[in-house]
Amino acid sequence: MGSKNVYLFSEGNAQMKELLGGKGANLAEMTRIGLPVPPGFTVSTAACLEYFRREQKIWPELQDEVLAALRKLEEITGKKFGDKTNPLLVSVRSGAVISMPGMMDTVLNLGLNDETVLGLAAAASNERFAYDCYRRFIQMFGDVVLDIDHYLFEHTLEKKKQALGVRDDTGLDAGALQELVAEFKDIVFRETKKHFPQDPEEQLMLAIQAVFASWNNQRAIVYRQINKIPDDLGTAVNVQTMVFGNLGEDSGTGVAFTRNPADGTNELYGEFLVNAQGEDVVAGIRTPLDISKMAEYMPAVYEEFKELCNLLEKHYRDVQDIEFTVERGKLYLLQTRSGKRTAAAAVKTAVNMAQEGLIDRKEALLRVDPAQLDQLLHRRVDPSAKPDALAKGLPASPGAASGKIVFNADEAEKMAEDGEKVILVRPETTPDDIHGIVAAQGVLTSRGGMTSHAAVVARGMGKCCVAGCEALKIDLSAGTMTVGGQVFKKGDIISIDGSTGEVFAGEVPMIDPVLSDEFVVLLQWADEVKVLGVRANADTPEDAQKARELGARGIGLCRTEHMFMAQERLPVVQEMILAEDDETRAKALAKLLPMQQKDFEGIFRAMEGLPVTIRLLDPPLHEFLPNLEDLLVEVTLLRERKDNPELLREKEELLRQVRSLDELNPMLGHRGCRLGLVTPDIYKMQALAIFRAAAKLLSEGKTVTPEIMIPLVGLDKELEVMRRLVVEAAEEVMAETGLKIDYKVGTMIELPRACVTADRIAAHADFFSFGTNDLTQTTFGYSRDDAEGKFLLHYLQEKILPENPFAVLDRDGVGELVKMAAEKGRAVKQDLKLGICGEHGGDPSSIEFCHLVGLDYVSCSPFRVPIARLAAARAAISNRD
Amino acid sequence: MGSKNVYLFSEGNAQMKELLGGKGANLAEMTRIGLPVPPGFTVSTAACLEYFRREQKIWPELQDEVLAALRKLEEITGKKFGDKTNPLLVSVRSGAVISMPGMMDTVLNLGLNDETVLGLAAAASNERFAYDCYRRFIQMFGDVVLDIDHYLFEHTLEKKKQALGVRDDTGLDAGALQELVAEFKDIVFRETKKHFPQDPEEQLMLAIQAVFASWNNQRAIVYRQINKIPDDLGTAVNVQTMVFGNLGEDSGTGVAFTRNPADGTNELYGEFLVNAQGEDVVAGIRTPLDISKMAEYMPAVYEEFKELCNLLEKHYRDVQDIEFTVERGKLYLLQTRSGKRTAAAAVKTAVNMAQEGLIDRKEALLRVDPAQLDQLLHRRVDPSAKPDALAKGLPASPGAASGKIVFNADEAEKMAEDGEKVILVRPETTPDDIHGIVAAQGVLTSRGGMTSHAAVVARGMGKCCVAGCEALKIDLSAGTMTVGGQVFKKGDIISIDGSTGEVFAGEVPMIDPVLSDEFVVLLQWADEVKVLGVRANADTPEDAQKARELGARGIGLCRTEHMFMAQERLPVVQEMILAEDDETRAKALAKLLPMQQKDFEGIFRAMEGLPVTIRLLDPPLHEFLPNLEDLLVEVTLLRERKDNPELLREKEELLRQVRSLDELNPMLGHRGCRLGLVTPDIYKMQALAIFRAAAKLLSEGKTVTPEIMIPLVGLDKELEVMRRLVVEAAEEVMAETGLKIDYKVGTMIELPRACVTADRIAAHADFFSFGTNDLTQTTFGYSRDDAEGKFLLHYLQEKILPENPFAVLDRDGVGELVKMAAEKGRAVKQDLKLGICGEHGGDPSSIEFCHLVGLDYVSCSPFRVPIARLAAARAAISNRD
Repeated sequence: MGSKNVYLFSEGNAQMKELLGGKGANLAEMTRIGLPVPPGFTVSTAACLEYFRREQKIWPELQDEVLAALRKLEEITGKKFGDKTNPLLVSVRSGAVISMPGMMDTVLNLGLNDETVLGLAAAASNERFAYDCYRRFIQMFGDVVLDIDHYLFEHTLEKKKQALGVRDDTGLDAGALQELVAEFKDIVFRETKKHFPQDPEEQLMLAIQAVFASWNNQRAIVYRQINKIPDDLGTAVNVQTMVFGNLGEDSGTGVAFTRNPADGTNELYGEFLVNAQGEDVVAGIRTPLDISKMAEYMPAVYEEFKELCNLLEKHYRDVQDIEFTVERGKLYLLQTRSGKRTAAAAVKTAVNMAQEGLIDRKEALLRVDPAQLDQLLHRRVDPSAKPDALAKGLPASPGAASGKIVFNADEAEKMAEDGEKVILVRPETTPDDIHGIVAAQGVLTSRGGMTSHAAVVARGMGKCCVAGCEALKIDLSAGTMTVGGQVFKKGDIISIDGSTGEVFAGEVPMIDPVLSDEFVVLLQWADEVKVLGVRANADTPEDAQKARELGARGIGLCRTEHMFMAQERLPVVQEMILAEDDETRAKALAKLLPMQQKDFEGIFRAMEGLPVTIRLLDPPLHEFLPNLEDLLVEVTLLRERKDNPELLREKEELLRQVRSLDELNPMLGHRGCRLGLVTPDIYKMQALAIFRAAAKLLSEGKTVTPEIMIPLVGLDKELEVMRRLVVEAAEEVMAETGLKIDYKVGTMIELPRACVTADRIAAHADFFSFGTNDLTQTTFGYSRDDAEGKFLLHYLQEKILPENPFAVLDRDGVGELVKMAAEKGRAVKQDLKLGICGEHGGDPSSIEFCHLVGLDYVSCSPFRVPIARLAAARAAISNRD
Repeated sequence: MGSKNVYLFSEGNAQMKELLGGKGANLAEMTRIGLPVPPGFTVSTAACLEYFRREQKIWPELQDEVLAALRKLEEITGKKFGDKTNPLLVSVRSGAVISMPGMMDTVLNLGLNDETVLGLAAAASNERFAYDCYRRFIQMFGDVVLDIDHYLFEHTLEKKKQALGVRDDTGLDAGALQELVAEFKDIVFRETKKHFPQDPEEQLMLAIQAVFASWNNQRAIVYRQINKIPDDLGTAVNVQTMVFGNLGEDSGTGVAFTRNPADGTNELYGEFLVNAQGEDVVAGIRTPLDISKMAEYMPAVYEEFKELCNLLEKHYRDVQDIEFTVERGKLYLLQTRSGKRTAAAAVKTAVNMAQEGLIDRKEALLRVDPAQLDQLLHRRVDPSAKPDALAKGLPASPGAASGKIVFNADEAEKMAEDGEKVILVRPETTPDDIHGIVAAQGVLTSRGGMTSHAAVVARGMGKCCVAGCEALKIDLSAGTMTVGGQVFKKGDIISIDGSTGEVFAGEVPMIDPVLSDEFVVLLQWADEVKVLGVRANADTPEDAQKARELGARGIGLCRTEHMFMAQERLPVVQEMILAEDDETRAKALAKLLPMQQKDFEGIFRAMEGLPVTIRLLDPPLHEFLPNLEDLLVEVTLLRERKDNPELLREKEELLRQVRSLDELNPMLGHRGCRLGLVTPDIYKMQALAIFRAAAKLLSEGKTVTPEIMIPLVGLDKELEVMRRLVVEAAEEVMAETGLKIDYKVGTMIELPRACVTADRIAAHADFFSFGTNDLTQTTFGYSRDDAEGKFLLHYLQEKILPENPFAVLDRDGVGELVKMAAEKGRAVKQDLKLGICGEHGGDPSSIEFCHLVGLDYVSCSPFRVPIARLAAARAAISNRD
């Protein structure tokens, strides 16, 4: 260990992180590029390791090196350690290679003692300040270096305040603080059997040892275990000169961003206080000034600061968030880091910086977090208005809306037709409520999670939704909603913000989304580098149109069940389901066919020239029937009242039918292609409607490429039979019309068995679309409707699960199955088209996974298309090789 | 193609299957070992292939060979082809290497024409017989060789019978048949524009060509595709001399088994008719005699026959089922094959034959189909009594019982306590009904499949069950069950047979199971060769005892939820579930702990010295609460009647609680270890009960090895946390008692995610037990409760699925995941113990799979333990290499 252990900040640089720790290397780098950082030095990580090898003793050579560095500091600052008139004070901080909470953090004002405190008081012309620094120093040093229970100090402080009848620390005057210093020193003596060290050099050596030792305290060891950080890295120690912003009118302190973090404008943005310390800002005692005011108070320093800001942006190539202090006219930077910013600012800054040549386009793309973009794509409650929320639920679908409360879908529809804006409020929604969701401005539910029916449907429609707002007590029979003691009735106005999950009484101010020029530019750059295609999940021509505007290159999932739900169709659908004979069913289907055909024509028109993947009917048929519990109550009452035997008989019969279709676990029940196999007429009708719609457009000279998707396939035989049915329908229509229709037949891969046997299934498929919602449900054995309301929250809180697997694709489990299926499928059919159409198609981490396993495209809600485009580009950039 | 194409039976043997086809090789073998087979010859498969190469023409050399063989037949039989007085008649049959329906089957009596028919009439002294043969020959030949629609012949026959006013074919006399022959020949002429061929050699050549051609008919091609049989095998043609048992009192025909196929006794068993043909036996016109009577009618032939039977058994080393004909004192064997037998006969025969030295023990084990053994392990309705069934449901759990009908579990219990035998009749059962199932003799449900709750619980208890008997209309409110127009009330007696699925009115005679000496011996032999261990699924000391008697070497699955269901415990369990605070819950759990401890003590005692795997609580808690629909009806009525506001409030509160625990998909809900993680107190109580019970036995000097199993693990973290909980409980009890308890902690592997991440999970597991019921549900995405009643039957009928995956483990899908988990688990932990405890643990095919993937043991219902032992032995023998 003959080599160098202590490095002045001026001797290091950013690359020396391993030796100097993260913080040390950073301070060295700032110093190196000429920033006015308060001078200091770093004791290396290697010294820390040596310290442990030497059984936790500081060896003479190390002590000598530290003292030599200290002498250098004295030289640079002109102050002296332990000096009575102009004392050098330092801070001591730990600084590991990887930032690690659990280790010793900071001791400030080291170097104070009974004598130097007088020097500080004189320098600051403020005795109270000096004694306050001193008592804080003893308290901090006592706690983190001498390992004295901090409660003892706090208790004494508390007693002092009580004795003097003051409420805040600030109420204590210099005399009181001087007494406290004495009492704190007594505590130290009582607890350690030693006097509080008055020798600053002894203070320093003890502090350095304490930082070293904290590398191996229990908290740090556990933290390293959990985060898989090696135990043999050691920590560095940073010793830095203290500077003070409260030494007179030529001193001050402040915080500033090099660009506006709210909107990205290229202007200095921040706050500043003359003759103050950072703590004063935090304590909120004095109101800070706008940073521009600094030009009036200390023009020269302001000019210097502006230049430094420029330098910093150029050096770090990003917006900087800077803490600074001016000590007697001298500017010091205490910290600089990348500035946090809003989505709007992130987009504008990234694009501007690329245009300025500061970064390249790829870097610009990496600078914007796709998840943040959601904010930009929806209306929201004006945060500057700061209205008080009644309650907070899950931010289930972004956007904000105000409207009159309605408690059922039919009324929602009726009121909307009368031109009223309504918010649909339900305990939870079912497909029966779709027309109500369509009619409403937004949806509020008291039950259900981020992927409950309400949340998924609302996201799909780009409508705002607050879900699972458990503070809400909804009484449907009374027609009231109670929250926080307030009772709301039908017709009362509320507002909801689906980006925050907040619910408000009455109307609150909203702000509209702005698709800035920079945003458009950024997405163009994204399209240039991304490998994945981006499609949208859209069930209506309107959604398709919206998706196309937002950059979708086709539809990856067009669900057909919502089409069955339209008010005027549901009776026909029910007629079809409840048909006791083939003829009745055929009649009902014949009525549905032209309606479906029109749906598809509209969607094909909106997506003209681009592929449209249509999924045949998926949900169990009982979802289209009246609710079993409602019927049961009706029948019970009719039986009890005995006043309408005819209606009773009718309802009893309906109850019987509904019950016979009811399922214990509908998610795992008679749905998807199981319907198509047992009742092929339905799928046949849908296939004919698709091909007739396609023929219609072809006859108009338009291009259409329908891709028919069979849901819930788990057996190759299922797809074989269903493919045959679709091909027959296509041939029937082609024979009818004499037109040649270009089409594909493929399947959702959404069951573990489909993944395991993907090679066999691929034999009958032109494409696979991973339905990762259901695949997550079956792989985990989680019903998303139940899990999110029950155990999932607990799992996330306790870190049993790192993320909600319905929001972020689980790479280890579900992802492995997706990968297996992709590989098995492509092994059999090299040109098999692979996509994803679960909720994950709009999640950036999941999109990266799709890129990594080589899918062809992702498909997501229209409003997430821009997010997906950016995420796809970032995945391509980050994983290039 | 210069080589030999035609082989006399005397020229071939069993090994020449590829050239002679299965049937040809078999006939040759019988001939070779000296059996009196009617002579004949085989045209080889090679000739068939050559026939196709020559564009479907018989070439001269082949024709010459066939005719030469025919001359040999004439020599041997002394008859002549086409002879007017003693005509040689032959049968022509196809015979592929692999038996294939879809190909041409048989033409009998070939060689008959207008002249030879007279010879046959004279020889049989029966003109009617001869013309009947002739008209049948024309009909068969016309249909299968000349490809004339068989409807034409049938229609003419029908008209003839109508014209003569007779009902059966037998009513037609010789004259009528003679007329029919003429009319049939007209049909042939009309349809083929050619006369019916009178030349026997031409008949033969046409028939051979027809057999060849049938190799490539549509049905045969499709059959080969489906069954993956190569297209280039070709079929052979077998030409065999006809023999007649109706040529006088020295002729006859019969069928016999070399041992009794009902009970396995080593005695000749069968029937015999003098002066008759096989058809007479089938037609049931004359009553056949017992085979022993043959000794009186034709003693010499009988002796010869007995010797042949002996020879056959020795040669084929199995019980033979023999068809024979005696033509004028000469014995001919027409067919011999392994005889079908009952389970009892199979066991006795196999063991006896091994004891006689005819086969070795391994062969004996291979001779008994384990699935058949089920019959031997339960009571059943005496088949000899032949009672008329009211209806037939699914044979859900073997055994039979009679008793009074009860429609609910409480009444079942009450009546059973009063000493009544009852059958619990329900639309379907839930865990609420357990005490009723325990009290009942058997269970009958109108809904649900082979793995419905009723079926699974009944099988587990070894109680008989008929499930999903849809002909039953149960009206619970009226307290009636209607079936086939008959109405049954509570207290009416019915009988059910869970081995056949039949339901009977009143009491029917039953027979008890007999565990024969041979059965015991066979199972001992099985234990000597099997590699897999066999454990039982048992939840009570009684089940454990039973399982041990039947040879189980431990418990692979002890479910603890049934213990919660006992009548006196349910209120405490509900108290625990509905507890609004920790204290109330703790109190309820404290009451349950000693009860659980006693359960475990009983089971440990019954299984002393053997491992007992206990699964902590698995089902969702709402299963222990009152039914939501019942409550809803109650509350609706209380609201309507307004007569008991206090009870209404109470019930409303209960409804609210039940509803808050209710789930849309309970199978994928808050259950298994999710309960243990969210409410650790329950698992903690169970773990303490287990270890205290273990300590109790240890303190008595007994050996116990509890294996605690955590259900429904999908994340390694889940098991990590749950393992810690169990270990803490163990340490607590060991500290309390000062005893050292040997225990293991492991997990059910029953989710796809657990399989995919088995390596991580194995890090925290001492064992894996594959819960293939749930794994099948999640891998397929089938809710077994719903699927079996809905689409699964359709899937099986349409062959979309080859087997019910809940009965036979799906090797391609679920099996792949099991294999993956086993490999990943063992890669991390070589000594990881692997077992299976799903229903599949008792299914022979699934047991073979378990053997193949190297599991350590299977676990099944006590009553399937013998089956599992045998199946495990057979798997070991069949897969030895």
